Amino acid sequence: MKAALKMPPLITLTTDFGSRDHFVAVMKGVIAGIAPAARVVDVTHEITPFEVVEGAYTLAQAAAFFPAGTIHVAVVDPGVGSARRGLLVEADGQFYVGPDNGLLSLVALQGKKVKVRQLEAARYWLKPVSATFHGRDVFAPVAAHLAAGVAAAKFGKLVGDWQKPGSLAPHRTGSRIWMGTILKVDRFGNIITNFRPADFPEMQTRHWHFAVGMEQLDKRIEHYSQLATGEVGIIVGSSGYLEVIANQSDAARKLGVVAGAPVELVFART
Amino acid sequence: MKAALKMPPLITLTTDFGSRDHFVAVMKGVIAGIAPAARVVDVTHEITPFEVVEGAYTLAQAAAFFPAGTIHVAVVDPGVGSARRGLLVEADGQFYVGPDNGLLSLVALQGKKVKVRQLEAARYWLKPVSATFHGRDVFAPVAAHLAAGVAAAKFGKLVGDWQKPGSLAPHRTGSRIWMGTILKVDRFGNIITNFRPADFPEMQTRHWHFAVGMEQLDKRIEHYSQLATGEVGIIVGSSGYLEVIANQSDAARKLGVVAGAPVELVFART
Amino acid sequence: MKAALKMPPLITLTTDFGSRDHFVAVMKGVIAGIAPAARVVDVTHEITPFEVVEGAYTLAQAAAFFPAGTIHVAVVDPGVGSARRGLLVEADGQFYVGPDNGLLSLVALQGKKVKVRQLEAARYWLKPVSATFHGRDVFAPVAAHLAAGVAAAKFGKLVGDWQKPGSLAPHRTGSRIWMGTILKVDRFGNIITNFRPADFPEMQTRHWHFAVGMEQLDKRIEHYSQLATGEVGIIVGSSGYLEVIANQSDAARKLGVVAGAPVELVFART
Repeated sequence: MKAALKMPPLITLTTDFGSRDHFVAVMKGVIAGIAPAARVVDVTHEITPFEVVEGAYTLAQAAAFFPAGTIHVAVVDPGVGSARRGLLVEADGQFYVGPDNGLLSLVALQGKKVKVRQLEAARYWLKPVSATFHGRDVFAPVAAHLAAGVAAAKFGKLVGDWQKPGSLAPHRTGSRIWMGTILKVDRFGNIITNFRPADFPEMQTRHWHFAVGMEQLDKRIEHYSQLATGEVGIIVGSSGYLEVIANQSDAARKLGVVAGAPVELVFART
Repeated sequence: MKAALKMPPLITLTTDFGSRDHFVAVMKGVIAGIAPAARVVDVTHEITPFEVVEGAYTLAQAAAFFPAGTIHVAVVDPGVGSARRGLLVEADGQFYVGPDNGLLSLVALQGKKVKVRQLEAARYWLKPVSATFHGRDVFAPVAAHLAAGVAAAKFGKLVGDWQKPGSLAPHRTGSRIWMGTILKVDRFGNIITNFRPADFPEMQTRHWHFAVGMEQLDKRIEHYSQLATGEVGIIVGSSGYLEVIANQSDAARKLGVVAGAPVELVFART
Repeated sequence: MKAALKMPPLITLTTDFGSRDHFVAVMKGVIAGIAPAARVVDVTHEITPFEVVEGAYTLAQAAAFFPAGTIHVAVVDPGVGSARRGLLVEADGQFYVGPDNGLLSLVALQGKKVKVRQLEAARYWLKPVSATFHGRDVFAPVAAHLAAGVAAAKFGKLVGDWQKPGSLAPHRTGSRIWMGTILKVDRFGNIITNFRPADFPEMQTRHWHFAVGMEQLDKRIEHYSQLATGEVGIIVGSSGYLEVIANQSDAARKLGVVAGAPVELVFART
């Protein structure tokens, strides 16, 4: 009786596959064959091709609002066909399946009760595994078997040496200077940096500016309406990260920057 | 027994959020957390940013084919964070949740058995409500609670003073002239005007033309094949509105117009 | 009891409708009204408008990974409103609904246990059937009634004279020359030809090259890493067809070709 009342498992997909081809549907077909009761939700398939950090950010932002038990599949995988491993991550009661290239590292680094396993039980993969499409052959089947009730431990052993890209967190490059990066430019041209106010409490008490593209920016705002039309400012976005935005305008185009470009945090001399 | 046979509630989403970011998935995650049995269908997330009229038109066109009980969430919301209210509209046995900026006005104006409520019961919202993302914090949760069985009256009181954009219906500007607008340009470049033959019975008996961009158009057709390749004509679209189309060609590009541009209906002197 | 355990029927959609308009959602609304338990999966709505061969290829690639019983609706339909028929195809235990213009011919030609019926039972269509939107009025309702349990034979009689586009298979144009075509250019710029090694066993033993655009190509590879960055080669893709690809680059742009362009297979003199 209890099983009958259980909600169907939820699987999300985050890829750089685009929406013109059959790739995403093939993954859904594979899932439907293994776990017919599972429901699949697209996060996005429009990650910039091969931009692992953008994928990691988008996945983490989406996952934060999904219920416990959700299984997230992520495939942004420039190293497909090479020796890189697949991972199954448990964090905060949710599951993440994808390549070991940093894509799952943000949820693993920020999550609680984290367990990281490498995918090694080939009996849960399609056969043969192609050199080009592990989303279909490895990650979708693993997620589906997990949704169908296979225990996480069956897929592979716990590992600690998974990839943690340096670009996910800012690093110090001078006594007053931190080098960060643009995690993503969103649809509206908002620039999401990898600086979180929570990680830099001195932002509250010292003067500082961002160096982005050719500009130095120091206008902190709390509402868009504090900016004139087209004016550029810095706001804590709904993401929890500092975002460089322009009122009713595309900040990334205005500053001439794209995902992966550097952002410098410079504190004033004290 | 009856409950067990009931179909899962259906929730549709119509936004200008695009498909590159986590925004839409976040709304689906919120819904899954509150109403796990609900099924979510995307209408589109490609409404031109901030184009409320285009959103209103697209939502009304889609909703006309959904079964009773469907809950539609629409978010095209240039005024998010300001004092504009949220609405819950009942019309023709379906439900609509979104901002009070005209987005829901087409279904409310054209529907039968219409009830419009303002969203005021904050216990059905996420906390805290952000200044930038009411789709996540207000509209998705309200739709999900409605899907989960909360009665419509619980969300807020009935109101009559909701926004009705003038641009949704043509208005008379001369004895023989009506000023209308382009509700939308579709994927094929067809220009959907806000003129419906049902509203202008004299179109059947008098000569008239459309002034669109720099052109005067008076070729009425019933099938595309009545036009030479590339020729421009006027047809009653599957939408019920008059559409300006070009055979195997992009009429909007040909005429140099976009959504929101004016369309004049000019009757000949009698 | 058995019915209670049965999985909900799965319906996929493959169209050239794009994602900006209400067209796809309308089809989903129609399906939800007729077969509320059916689950709908998008293959893609980004088929190049009116490119029937690209649609046929994409549908066949996706369907290969769906479970038995899946119902696929495909609408790439330049002849809508003319006398062309609708078809219901059974192949390999799956179902296909769409226009008789070649769109379903690849699955019908390559499948086993194939039955092709023409759609003639108008009681399963919306009324009236429009001249412009058979996806809504004919194909979606037929798929939904099929999902709801109506037997395939109820929709129309078996036919043998359905459309088989010449462009789906290469044809011989000289003693050493076969003329083929580009089925599709995918998101990454990979050029999928309609040549399958299985159909040309002499490819294993004789020298040959592809003539594509202005280039003659003869570099066969098995992994992308066998190419220098930007170098163009030929690989058996995950599709089973020969693909012309460029390492970390867009082969179609490099060669200046699009879907539908010719590809010549030229064997060396023996």
